[in-house]
Amino acid sequence: MPPPVNRPLRVALLGCGSVGSQVARLLGEQTADLGARVGAPIELAGIAVRRPERARDADIPVDLLTTDAHGLVTRGDIDVVIEVIGGIEPARSLILAALSAGASVVTANKALLAADGPTLYEAAAAASRDIYFEAAVAGAIPIIRPLRESLAGDKVRRVLGIVNGTTNYVLDQMDSSGLGFDEALESAQALGYAEADPTADVEGFDAAAKAAILASLAFHTRVTVADVHREGITEVSASDIVSAQQLGSVVKLLAICESEEGNAVTRVSARVHPAMIPRSHPLASVRGAYNAVFVESDAAGQLMFYGPGAGGAPTASAVLGDLVTVARNRLSNITGAGESTYADCVIAAMGDTVTRYHVAIDVDDKPGVLASVAEMFAREDISIQTVRQVGRGDEARLVVVTHAAPDSALAATVDALTTMPSVRVVTSVMRVEGVSD
Amino acid sequence: MPPPVNRPLRVALLGCGSVGSQVARLLGEQTADLGARVGAPIELAGIAVRRPERARDADIPVDLLTTDAHGLVTRGDIDVVIEVIGGIEPARSLILAALSAGASVVTANKALLAADGPTLYEAAAAASRDIYFEAAVAGAIPIIRPLRESLAGDKVRRVLGIVNGTTNYVLDQMDSSGLGFDEALESAQALGYAEADPTADVEGFDAAAKAAILASLAFHTRVTVADVHREGITEVSASDIVSAQQLGSVVKLLAICESEEGNAVTRVSARVHPAMIPRSHPLASVRGAYNAVFVESDAAGQLMFYGPGAGGAPTASAVLGDLVTVARNRLSNITGAGESTYADCVIAAMGDTVTRYHVAIDVDDKPGVLASVAEMFAREDISIQTVRQVGRGDEARLVVVTHAAPDSALAATVDALTTMPSVRVVTSVMRVEGVSD
Repeated sequence: MPPPVNRPLRVALLGCGSVGSQVARLLGEQTADLGARVGAPIELAGIAVRRPERARDADIPVDLLTTDAHGLVTRGDIDVVIEVIGGIEPARSLILAALSAGASVVTANKALLAADGPTLYEAAAAASRDIYFEAAVAGAIPIIRPLRESLAGDKVRRVLGIVNGTTNYVLDQMDSSGLGFDEALESAQALGYAEADPTADVEGFDAAAKAAILASLAFHTRVTVADVHREGITEVSASDIVSAQQLGSVVKLLAICESEEGNAVTRVSARVHPAMIPRSHPLASVRGAYNAVFVESDAAGQLMFYGPGAGGAPTASAVLGDLVTVARNRLSNITGAGESTYADCVIAAMGDTVTRYHVAIDVDDKPGVLASVAEMFAREDISIQTVRQVGRGDEARLVVVTHAAPDSALAATVDALTTMPSVRVVTSVMRVEGVSD
Repeated sequence: MPPPVNRPLRVALLGCGSVGSQVARLLGEQTADLGARVGAPIELAGIAVRRPERARDADIPVDLLTTDAHGLVTRGDIDVVIEVIGGIEPARSLILAALSAGASVVTANKALLAADGPTLYEAAAAASRDIYFEAAVAGAIPIIRPLRESLAGDKVRRVLGIVNGTTNYVLDQMDSSGLGFDEALESAQALGYAEADPTADVEGFDAAAKAAILASLAFHTRVTVADVHREGITEVSASDIVSAQQLGSVVKLLAICESEEGNAVTRVSARVHPAMIPRSHPLASVRGAYNAVFVESDAAGQLMFYGPGAGGAPTASAVLGDLVTVARNRLSNITGAGESTYADCVIAAMGDTVTRYHVAIDVDDKPGVLASVAEMFAREDISIQTVRQVGRGDEARLVVVTHAAPDSALAATVDALTTMPSVRVVTSVMRVEGVSD
């Protein structure tokens, strides 16, 4: 083991955008507090940016700016590297270089962790250094640490998360003001809740990365973003929202991680899709751009963690919480808990995942149609919880809510419905979550 | 430093009631998982109970039962002692003996921590051992670890907690079904949510202990239960509940920890009392016997942690989470973060604490009464937010909601109101929380 660190702990910051500038500000403002909490002074040694000439807040010490990120992390005297650049490269190379050079790493990089987390974990273990990433999921909300540590003596069964503020804002607007998806998205863009190119949010890529991270931690199994079934919210219509309201439900984009114990193996799954949840569910009251993660475990029961899921200052708070732990570990020449993969569960295919469907079907209004539609579900061995007809004549619509069944059987049923002569169109298919079967 | 531990980690369990029996059950069921998470086998070495002859669940290994708790914790080969006896003695002596004998401690004992936490922390530091206590506040909800670690780089300003399930159940019943306090308490007792002697819960003693623990962690300052202003819920009437409903609010028993930065010193306070909070506040939707802790910090903003606040299995989950951390620390011969008191803030007197009041006053229904009542508030320099008259004639009542003011000024005003000839009776005084001023 290397000798203990007796000088100030030197921190390198990679990136100085909305999160990085808040990290730099808080490091400056809270120098004394941070030093007291760590047990040694914390010194910001350099900030790597792409465009040093860009105008910055007065809080940012411009003499620390550099464009040579690699030189900064490998200069030999850096104890902790904070990576808030985002994206896969150059973030990955810089993190690996930092670990090789003996620095521990704090990162907010969900995309990289979800794509290639094991490489980072292994590099950290090989270097006897930490990699911490509370800020990567749900911003300021402490969820990584509770999963890694607080629930370490429990068995997590399911995680349901609202982990993307943009989509929650859009769906909340659709629910509260009756807007369609496009209008709600425009309003979100106008208010800065959505980016000009909203793809990563509305198509569920951001949430899928977080789902992979949450599933890995919850189930002690490597789950990458390639294992995550992903559907975004672009197909969610005003009519879906009304359907949900009629059921006493609300539509949310959920990241869902589940485990299912079989005879010999435990299967786990991670998926992201819009779903109807009952308004009585704690997640239903998560409004606007807020995030929340709902955890069900054997012994603890139902827990929920709620807070701002994004934003410079909240994310910086999570980064600094990790910094204190990682810096304390450096002082003692130890590392915290690393990757935990001992359970090594099998990843279930989406088709085998057990879900419930809400299906709205425009049908001919004549006797026998309900029975023939119900028959289609029965053929796939799917039990129907409720079926009701809304509207008459040309407006006749059947709304079916199923019990839990394999997703492949439900999908096959929906395909079969579209071929029925008495079915004019399947207007909406959405999964139902947050109810016990 | 003592040599590393290479054998199985031996755990002694003190107490085998509702929590202890669940700890023993989970230790048995999850032996393999716990071993994988810790990095060494975990072995239950003994269970100290008062009455070994008592009937127990089949999960409890009866051959491990002993009445000699002191002998168990001092026998020399125990690595971790789990204390779930509760109360001050013999729990304190046993914890101190365990630390002296070289064991780390996991405890759920809020009363002891709130009364005499510093003694325990100092003994742990002197012995180079850990004392962890996630289960002491809000059962399974991870709140201690987020405050100690996740928010270590942030500045906590306020903690509002629903930390007692019994009183939340009683108040929720009063709110939803219009019951008076006595009837709601009886219903809680019939369902097992309240004990036959409900004093510790309904008088706020339990919540006050938790408030002291939360304030100590949030503000890095020693706060004991003697510093906590405490009022219970026995005086909360059906009429208060209706008043709150008319304001769009709900009555909750809150544990409130606040810090206020002054010119030279930061003052902190901890108090427990019933309060009206707006129904739109995240804490308002915490129903039944659930707990939740709402944290406001500079950078993270508003966070909430929600879950079951009591019960054998949830509390055992929190105990085992701590056990995994403490056991990992023992394996590496390190300790986690100990007591943090560097801020050493001044404890504010309750009279200096800034609060808002809701006051209902039965008055003579004649011109000038509202003005003279308002004048009483003005004399103490208290700004009124709203005053409204409800009822006429013999039923005339004024309802005043103030802006924030020192509690002593508000209390003095209420005293003065009772002496006014036109005031028949001050029917209700309750603080208002969860609104910005």
